[in-house]
Parts: sequence; structure tokens; C-alpha cells
Amino acid sequence: MIFDVLSLFPEMIEDYCNYSIIKRAVEAGVVSINAINPRDYTLNKHKKVDDTPYGGGAGMVLMPQPYVDAFESVKRLDNSCVIMLSPQGEQLNDKIVNELAKYEQIVLLCGHYEGFDERIRDIIRPREISIGDFVLTGGELPALCLIDAVSRKLEGTLGKIESADEDSFSNGLLEYPHYTKPREYRGLKVPEVLLNGNHKDISEFRLQKSIERTKTKRPDLYEKWLEDN
Amino acid sequence: MIFDVLSLFPEMIEDYCNYSIIKRAVEAGVVSINAINPRDYTLNKHKKVDDTPYGGGAGMVLMPQPYVDAFESVKRLDNSCVIMLSPQGEQLNDKIVNELAKYEQIVLLCGHYEGFDERIRDIIRPREISIGDFVLTGGELPALCLIDAVSRKLEGTLGKIESADEDSFSNGLLEYPHYTKPREYRGLKVPEVLLNGNHKDISEFRLQKSIERTKTKRPDLYEKWLEDN
Repeated sequence: MIFDVLSLFPEMIEDYCNYSIIKRAVEAGVVSINAINPRDYTLNKHKKVDDTPYGGGAGMVLMPQPYVDAFESVKRLDNSCVIMLSPQGEQLNDKIVNELAKYEQIVLLCGHYEGFDERIRDIIRPREISIGDFVLTGGELPALCLIDAVSRKLEGTLGKIESADEDSFSNGLLEYPHYTKPREYRGLKVPEVLLNGNHKDISEFRLQKSIERTKTKRPDLYEKWLEDN
Repeated sequence: MIFDVLSLFPEMIEDYCNYSIIKRAVEAGVVSINAINPRDYTLNKHKKVDDTPYGGGAGMVLMPQPYVDAFESVKRLDNSCVIMLSPQGEQLNDKIVNELAKYEQIVLLCGHYEGFDERIRDIIRPREISIGDFVLTGGELPALCLIDAVSRKLEGTLGKIESADEDSFSNGLLEYPHYTKPREYRGLKVPEVLLNGNHKDISEFRLQKSIERTKTKRPDLYEKWLEDN
């Protein structure tokens, strides 16, 4: 999977790729992440990429020329999609993540400061994705969330010691509680059932806990799970 | 505002603070961000922080001792809160961001890999916050989203050239479209009303566009806005 990320802060993207599972996925050749800076494409002699909004108001707006030219410089594969990170988009969820994991290339458009000149949307016509109803300084963190979530679903990213199959949402429920060593910590004991080695009992216990937890914390998910099961 | 972030990858947190608006907020003394590594608190001679789950299954689980000790090392202010980033939490939104911006200190607990030993939750009893129904490798990106979103709301973070007041969600609607120079780009013109300097017309145009856009892209927000207005 190739991620091409348009950002005025390409180092934010590159830094993140130095850590943990994404680093390993890059090293293993499962994902490749390129950051492209629209500032390198500006025809303006001051390398300006933004300007004040027409009609007044606070904030700077990304000018169309550098951004569109940077976008058009990206070599596109057949099986690719273009996503603008924006609080106006559809909200990212596990279903969309699975869908995105099927592409060979995802081009991610990050804004910064106030936002995009509307003509960037008009020309590129990206799919717009949001990570939630809150506002961030730029699209870089949402882009990294998307890269991380999608990369986890690709074969070869997670090793034997990790697993995406048992994550929250993968079966429509929140994940069951985990316990590791020691058996007792500050008087709190690991539930006996997890120690007795009976796989059927363990599965039953975990499913029950997943259901209880989902019912309490996320009644919306619980209702949906009831319908589907 | 002090953010104390417990993470096995403290550099991920520190790197982000070198950029853009967060960097400025740190330099201006509006926010202070400390990363604390539970690995520095382990009493295990191999500096182990995680182990395999009781009951079997994939993934590594964060052990209670290093994490709880690291948490207890954080000096707490009176007006503070503790948040665990977890896909099981309540979903972060603009309302919660505003609420969090009133604290003097936020302690953020990031997991990594499979998750926390349940006794960490039992002992610390954090508020749990999620940034959406998808799974990430760790809590670091959600923690940074929260830090970024909350920091934007603090006086002194955004300069005159930016503004949080006109952001999406601040009035219950998505933001109106922005336009900057040039007046015409690839045949696409800036709407005439934004050029005529009539503030009343401009406000009316922008509100209308916000309403249209919200109605189309986020009917749920639009219904809520109708009720409230």
C-alpha cells in the first residue's frame, strides 16, 4: 500500500514512521509513505501557499495553485483513492478502514490553519473523511490515524504477537478485559477462569464481558450487535 | 495547561511538540507537555512492561506495576483530570474539548499493542475517551489529537491570524467555504458576494452555505441545530 500525503509539515508524517508498528511495516515493504509539500510546487516567488480569505475573517486559506499542482504531481495507480482529511467528512470507522485497506494507493490531503480554498475541493473532488466532531490545527494527525488504522489491517504489518482479529469493533463489540502477570496485584486478582486452561470457559467468559461492557459503555453498538446476531 | 502523557513511546509525543501551533503554545508558556515512560518505573530487571495475556490469545498486555507506579509519580494539581485513550471510551467531540480546556492539568494514559491489564483501570479509574470507532496501534495519536484540540481553545495559543470561533461545530454547523487569491483559477471564480465588501451580505452568504453544507453532509448535526435555533 502506498500512502502519498500532501502536507505543509511533511516532517510530522515522516517522524511518525520512525516508530513501532508503522516503522516495521515500512521496513517490511508492506507500506510505503511519501510526504509531498505543496510549498515545493508554488509558482509564487515567496513560496507562499496561503493567503487571507476573500470576504474577511480570521485565518489563512490554502491557495489552489500550489495544492492542485502538488496533487497532480503524484503518480496514480489504478486502484487508488483520494481522501481529504476534514471535519466535514464522513466519520472514520472500522468499516471504512477495512474498505480503504483494499486499495493499492491512498492519496491523503492535509489542510493546515483555516482550511482549503473551496476550488481545491471542486477540482480534486476527494472523498472527505473526518476523525470526529472536533477541530485540529491540521490534517496531519487524522492522516496518521488513518495510515495507522489501515496499515494494521494489511497482511504482514502485525506479527504473531499482535492481532487485529480480536480488536474492539472487529466482531461488533468492544474488546473483553485483558489480564497479565502477576496473578495478584495490590489485592486485585486475575479472574480464576483465565487460569484454569479451559478454552471453552475462557471464550464464554470473554464474550460475556464483551457484551456487558458494550451494553454499558456503548448502548448504540450493543443494539446494532443484537440486530446482527 | 499541563499535559502529562504516559507512553511507551515518549518521543512520539515530544516530536509533535516541535511543530506549528503546539510548538508556539509551548514556547509561549500556554501549555507544557511532559512525556513519562512507564518503562522507567518497572521493577523488573529486564525493564519489561508487558507480558502475554492470561487465558491465551494474541498480543501483549501492559502489566499493572510499571504503569501504576509511573502514574503515581505524576504530581497532581487540584484542578486536574485523568484520561485513558481507549476505543471503549466516550467519543471526543467539541463539547468535551471545551470542558477539558477548563482543567489546569490533564494526565493522559496511552496504551500500546493489545491493551491495558484491567487492574490498571480498576486502580486509576480514569475517564476513558476514544477518538472514533477504529483501532490504532497505541494511544499516542489520540492523545496528540486531544492535546491539539484542547490547546487551540486556550487563550494565547491561536494568534490574530487564526481563530477557533469560526471553526466547524463552534456554532453547531459545519464551516462555510473559504476562498483566497486568485479571483479566478482554472475558470473557477470566487463568488461575487465575497468581493463586494458588504458585510451583511457576506455573513448571510456564509450562514446560508454553512446550513446547506451541514444539511447535505451531516443531517444529524443539522437536525440538532434546527432544534437549538
